Amino acid sequence: MPAPYRHHRRVEFRDTDAAGIVHFSVFFNYMEEAEHALLRKLDFSVLAQDENGAFSWPRVAVKCDYRSPLRFGDEFDVDVSVAKLGRSSVTYAFRFTLRETVIAEAEIVAVCCRLGAGRPTPIPVPEPLAEKLRGMIIK
Amino acid sequence: MPAPYRHHRRVEFRDTDAAGIVHFSVFFNYMEEAEHALLRKLDFSVLAQDENGAFSWPRVAVKCDYRSPLRFGDEFDVDVSVAKLGRSSVTYAFRFTLRETVIAEAEIVAVCCRLGAGRPTPIPVPEPLAEKLRGMIIK
Amino acid sequence: MPAPYRHHRRVEFRDTDAAGIVHFSVFFNYMEEAEHALLRKLDFSVLAQDENGAFSWPRVAVKCDYRSPLRFGDEFDVDVSVAKLGRSSVTYAFRFTLRETVIAEAEIVAVCCRLGAGRPTPIPVPEPLAEKLRGMIIK
Amino acid sequence: MPAPYRHHRRVEFRDTDAAGIVHFSVFFNYMEEAEHALLRKLDFSVLAQDENGAFSWPRVAVKCDYRSPLRFGDEFDVDVSVAKLGRSSVTYAFRFTLRETVIAEAEIVAVCCRLGAGRPTPIPVPEPLAEKLRGMIIK
Repeated sequence: MPAPYRHHRRVEFRDTDAAGIVHFSVFFNYMEEAEHALLRKLDFSVLAQDENGAFSWPRVAVKCDYRSPLRFGDEFDVDVSVAKLGRSSVTYAFRFTLRETVIAEAEIVAVCCRLGAGRPTPIPVPEPLAEKLRGMIIK
Repeated sequence: MPAPYRHHRRVEFRDTDAAGIVHFSVFFNYMEEAEHALLRKLDFSVLAQDENGAFSWPRVAVKCDYRSPLRFGDEFDVDVSVAKLGRSSVTYAFRFTLRETVIAEAEIVAVCCRLGAGRPTPIPVPEPLAEKLRGMIIK
Repeated sequence: MPAPYRHHRRVEFRDTDAAGIVHFSVFFNYMEEAEHALLRKLDFSVLAQDENGAFSWPRVAVKCDYRSPLRFGDEFDVDVSVAKLGRSSVTYAFRFTLRETVIAEAEIVAVCCRLGAGRPTPIPVPEPLAEKLRGMIIK
Repeated sequence: MPAPYRHHRRVEFRDTDAAGIVHFSVFFNYMEEAEHALLRKLDFSVLAQDENGAFSWPRVAVKCDYRSPLRFGDEFDVDVSVAKLGRSSVTYAFRFTLRETVIAEAEIVAVCCRLGAGRPTPIPVPEPLAEKLRGMIIK
């Protein structure tokens, strides 16, 4: 079974709020950083270009379950894996851990889209990337 | 049937990203603003105090489905209603619209918790607030 | 003497940090919101278009002196005036007040620039706007 | 002459705005990250505790001159040095570079303050830290 991609991060001060913990919206920024780090590792950029122009990965659905707070200075891990791969879409699964504790579990569904004037249009995930992502599916 | 609470907002420049649209994480900040505006309208503060100390509303689960992008300068509405009311928890439902278009639909589950050293502990939603929120449940 | 433009704002929860106050970087977002509100009131958009393409207002210098903190829920005012008007540049002066207290004083120097591939190029402030801004110079 | 402390950073997607570049307010978050990394390297925490309670470093003045934009994915350096050391205050100087290009130069004046109810009160910079910071003054 493939191992998830592990992204290591420290909680910076601006990530916190007046409740003394990381604001719940910031977890989605952490996830995006981890996703982009994974794409870089796979030699893909999140803002890519092919012979037909630019394409990128708008999000169509996200969710997060929070189990335990993160605080300023905490060093934690975000494990990214692929939960599902469609023709145009990738469902990433995220698991946040701080030492032995699960902090949060989450999902982002991103759709590969041609950018341009007007609404983004879904296009197939480029095959070289699809192949690598397929190898990261955790059943 | 009760009407949802409507929060009006303009997209500020810092809400956007290099894709030219509002970053998906920012929708959660918009939701929180709308939730807090609703609580103020119901005469409650999100950081409240009773004879036993401070209590607040950590989030345990959130999700959002994105249907259409928001851009700099757009003026949109966030409609908040109560989807479910538990002993300690409130599930808020959010619907973003820009003119006639549905932009996003989302949910936040918040749990009423006593704050202090260590982990927040769930406490019952204060009855006066529970009564008002019950009146906002949309079936 | 011309009156500054007054922008009214409430501190939202995401604006705060674990020190329980508004993060110092957020004051610059408040300033930008006030500047954009002023431009709208003068019938100009911050991302404008003329027959030669798009132009906007990159910042070349900013500063802020902080006198007193802002906290969650505070409702404060940002007064914007024009400190200096150059051929391509506008120096905005900002003054934050909470009830009678001065919270912060700040400046942003923005330069009117043609956008496009490569580095933004300064262009003269469009005369209709320059005229209005000249009327807001506070000596 | 002492070398500045160098902090390496990548531009994340949420740091950008619809102009396609890093939002000017985000530079202050980068500076704070660099300052905190320096304090950690000197074995100090930005939220410290002594026998009289908690103390920290509210900012009283900041400024930044922007020379060139940063874009998504750029990997840049922030060099931190000490420009001035007062009894209670530290003036940090920051220099952002991307490969050979100077991106921005900036300053933050932070004041060592006892926290608690009411306004923060300045206290002397703890001597062990003052000594280390004195060694970083660049004339």
